[in-house]
Amino acid sequence: DSSLKVLSLNSNRKLAEDIAAHIGTTLGECTVSRFSDGEVQINIEESIRGCDVYVVQSTSAPVNQHLMELLIMIDALKRASAKSINIVMPYYGYARQDRKARSREPIAAKLVADLIETAGANRVITLDLHAPQIQGFFNLPIDHLQAVPILSSYFEEKKLDDLIIVSPDHGGVTRARKMADRLKAPIGIIDKRRPRPNVAEVMNIIGNIEGKTAILIDDIIDTAGTITLAANALIENGAKEVYACCTHPVLSGPAIERIENSKIKELVVTDSIVLPEEKNIEKVTTLSVAPLLGEAIIRVHELQSVSILFE
Amino acid sequence: DSSLKVLSLNSNRKLAEDIAAHIGTTLGECTVSRFSDGEVQINIEESIRGCDVYVVQSTSAPVNQHLMELLIMIDALKRASAKSINIVMPYYGYARQDRKARSREPIAAKLVADLIETAGANRVITLDLHAPQIQGFFNLPIDHLQAVPILSSYFEEKKLDDLIIVSPDHGGVTRARKMADRLKAPIGIIDKRRPRPNVAEVMNIIGNIEGKTAILIDDIIDTAGTITLAANALIENGAKEVYACCTHPVLSGPAIERIENSKIKELVVTDSIVLPEEKNIEKVTTLSVAPLLGEAIIRVHELQSVSILFE
Ligand SMILES: Nc1ncnc2c1ncn2[C@@H]1O[C@H](COP(=O)(O)O)[C@@H](O)[C@H]1O
Ligand SMILES: Nc1ncnc2c1ncn2[C@@H]1O[C@H](COP(=O)(O)O)[C@@H](O)[C@H]1O
Repeated sequence: DSSLKVLSLNSNRKLAEDIAAHIGTTLGECTVSRFSDGEVQINIEESIRGCDVYVVQSTSAPVNQHLMELLIMIDALKRASAKSINIVMPYYGYARQDRKARSREPIAAKLVADLIETAGANRVITLDLHAPQIQGFFNLPIDHLQAVPILSSYFEEKKLDDLIIVSPDHGGVTRARKMADRLKAPIGIIDKRRPRPNVAEVMNIIGNIEGKTAILIDDIIDTAGTITLAANALIENGAKEVYACCTHPVLSGPAIERIENSKIKELVVTDSIVLPEEKNIEKVTTLSVAPLLGEAIIRVHELQSVSILFE
Repeated sequence: DSSLKVLSLNSNRKLAEDIAAHIGTTLGECTVSRFSDGEVQINIEESIRGCDVYVVQSTSAPVNQHLMELLIMIDALKRASAKSINIVMPYYGYARQDRKARSREPIAAKLVADLIETAGANRVITLDLHAPQIQGFFNLPIDHLQAVPILSSYFEEKKLDDLIIVSPDHGGVTRARKMADRLKAPIGIIDKRRPRPNVAEVMNIIGNIEGKTAILIDDIIDTAGTITLAANALIENGAKEVYACCTHPVLSGPAIERIENSKIKELVVTDSIVLPEEKNIEKVTTLSVAPLLGEAIIRVHELQSVSILFE
């Protein structure tokens, strides 16, 4: 369809190319650079008048720069008379600031939703939001995709025996349940408790892991403290081996070192966030969400329901 | 007044302290830091319920980070029931993207205004906007201050003879005129022209500079290409010495080196943007806009007209 255009900003150029290829097109011509003082400079080099434009950008680190690239691109598209401006945002930054946990805290995840709407977006396609409630922060149609099927298929093909799917905390049990259903395995939960204030946390494991192959699943792995401690606790308590997986490999600070030094045998992630190239990350396997996002774009463009992708 | 609070973000902490001191108060308690993955983290450590809050932040480099700090702070203040949220923004980043000069260009200066309004600000106090039209990008009250009186007073005290105030381009003639009125001097203009395409620009000087002390004035000095070429052209055409001044010392890329190697005797700037500490900037003199901004806050808080500051 000639009126569909896919544009890439700077967070995930390779993923954007793969999405375009899946749809059977190539990326629209635009350059996204910076002026000498660091201000974002955007040049769209082909007409997009009357087009349905899909802009691919994760608000991964550097989050503020990636977000401003997105907002300025939306502004430019709006003023250039795009027919619709659809944001394909595999990773939604600031998602963990999604509620006031303490007095006088901001709710940055809601602010980001407001900023995207204010700039002029018409629709958002995203993947595994940290909290599904963030969908309600938008007054736009939002398609919320899931990576569980992709992660599950990968482990299915490995034909591992005696599996147990483990959530590293209480918040992630629903996600573990979904993967367990696909892999026909039981679930376990790491039940962290601090017995008294100023006493080290105890990692209590709910579920029988003795001699089993455990797969830890989370949405985001950031500094990798939780997941590596959980993996080590599983091995210490009798698990045979431990895999880990997540949708969004934030992997900031000591994350990669922690993973390499942990009992995790392999970490499986998606390309919603690009991994730092220069770092040595032997244990990490990356699966692409390009077919999933490409399929979602095709369905949105044909005005079909995207939820069919999970059936 | 106990209901007035001044908060500082990370762009100009010293200026914010000086503004608070001018008003006779101290900065409110808040920490503005970053999570491991680079997301902005804000903690406001005292109640601001029912207060008139003044947040000091320039959107200087790193512009996207400084802007997000500001937006997230506004969000936090709004949710913490501040009575009014007043933004003191000595330097307004993205001001040069203020119109569509070519097809499909964004107007980032308008986007930034919309983002600030969306986040929940009630008023903006700013200084020497690159284009005064940016005031109209806001639907909020905006106080637009000028640094010309401060820069002019500095040169007045130097008691220089045979002055001429020179604008480095046509766009800045009004500003040069204002300074010339204060210093009772004539004005000159650098009239850059490209005689034919692909031929070097000619620096034609309008006004008699022979044997005079020239003061070049601009709003922003960014890479310092224009201003240093102008200074050298003035000396080559018979000026005795050349001073330069501007409100906003962006000074990106080669700027400081160019200035140090140029014919400029002294560059006078304000603290609307903090200069890089590590660099060797012998020729630069910084004047503070803290009294000007402090006075504006006092007047806004007493619901008086700020324009009286220019009389
Ligand atoms: N970028 C971030 N990095 C680390 N922690 C964060 C970040 N953003 C928010 N948080 C904190 O993470 C907590 C929310 O995480 P969760 O309980 O997993 O939803 C809150 O206490 C937030 O203050
Ligand atoms: N941060 C920036 N650095 C350098 N040039 C810029 C920047 N932002 C906008 N511009 C360009 O500066 C020109 C506007 O400057 P002016 O003519 O002085 O208003 C436009 O051509 C813009 O594309």
